[in-house]
Amino acid sequence: MELQEALYTTRAMRRVTSEAIPMESQARILDAAIRAPSGGNQQGWRFLLVDDPGTIATLGPLYRDAMDQLWATVYKPRIDAAAAAPKTEESRQFDRVQRSAQWLADNFETVPLYLFAFSRYDPSGSSIYPAVWSAMLAARGEGIGTCLTAVLSAFHRDELLELLGVPKDAGWACSACVSFGYPTGRWAVAPRRAVHEVTYRNRWGEPSGLSVETPLWPPS
Amino acid sequence: MELQEALYTTRAMRRVTSEAIPMESQARILDAAIRAPSGGNQQGWRFLLVDDPGTIATLGPLYRDAMDQLWATVYKPRIDAAAAAPKTEESRQFDRVQRSAQWLADNFETVPLYLFAFSRYDPSGSSIYPAVWSAMLAARGEGIGTCLTAVLSAFHRDELLELLGVPKDAGWACSACVSFGYPTGRWAVAPRRAVHEVTYRNRWGEPSGLSVETPLWPPS
Repeated sequence: MELQEALYTTRAMRRVTSEAIPMESQARILDAAIRAPSGGNQQGWRFLLVDDPGTIATLGPLYRDAMDQLWATVYKPRIDAAAAAPKTEESRQFDRVQRSAQWLADNFETVPLYLFAFSRYDPSGSSIYPAVWSAMLAARGEGIGTCLTAVLSAFHRDELLELLGVPKDAGWACSACVSFGYPTGRWAVAPRRAVHEVTYRNRWGEPSGLSVETPLWPPS
Repeated sequence: MELQEALYTTRAMRRVTSEAIPMESQARILDAAIRAPSGGNQQGWRFLLVDDPGTIATLGPLYRDAMDQLWATVYKPRIDAAAAAPKTEESRQFDRVQRSAQWLADNFETVPLYLFAFSRYDPSGSSIYPAVWSAMLAARGEGIGTCLTAVLSAFHRDELLELLGVPKDAGWACSACVSFGYPTGRWAVAPRRAVHEVTYRNRWGEPSGLSVETPLWPPS
């Protein structure tokens, strides 16, 4: 697959089938992930693949509770805003996100594979995300959909580490949980706020000189 | 460019020429970046491109001071370990990283373009990194080298925001600074700890069942 196709069409793909992910695909995904750079090339990371139905069944209720907490806290203002003005484009978009996210919560146990990414000794906490996003892009190359979530470690950190057997006092934190599966929907370029709306040059607020009216991929 | 080539060869590429980055390349890089998913599709991001020599000249001393602080704090144990046992492979590798990082500090003003990424309303702080890494991969597709650094905002947060004109009390944090330029060296697959050494399955410490002896790209 072309790089640009992957960059333009790898969006949060939560609705997936329960079809197992072949080991060969998993190997290609992980081998691509570990090629990413990390701060000081420390590679302070571990990846834990979870496909055991028993383990996933124990995580499901934790995940649903974490999502309930997310709706009730972080996303409360957006939910209230959408309820107050349900017909705006912003409210419709958020409604789509919310239903998609709730699908994953409701169907957590049917997803065939999860990847938990752990990092340590990283003051900024950002070092592992190129590897995580590389794994998601490599999965896209295999026709596999992914979704990055941080709610389990945000709301159930200790239970999560305990459940997965992560050694205590060794400095490991769970940085991400990524779901993997074959999509039930189709791949497409996601609509986003345009480059010129979110990009400045040399000083905050100054025009970037870049204008992209329609996505630059696919080529017309 | 093929997705896999980009994923396998986009490494920290700090040594670059001062040749300007064409606006067309910058547009393709930013347009790819904004296609990345973000938590709740909030797109709580702004990108600030800096190519003004005067602005870069003001940032240079701050960056060098931040790197000095990094060596004296976070990386102190590794520097001491490398000094105590300079001939180990680990010490040699760290020495290479250190010299490369110091090159960027010493030559900060000769790099033609920096991208500062800002985010807000993101409890986990991770939402912006797929977009940042997508920008770096898209740059690779243009033959442009990049390096992600967080030291400026780690050690000089307030001066940095002031200097770039970021509005106060609006919740914006600088999540990353990425350097861009045409490499003086060549692209290659970076050696890394192998997949089976850093990957488990279903429980911490359990073998993943994946074994990758040599990088899966390029195909032999």
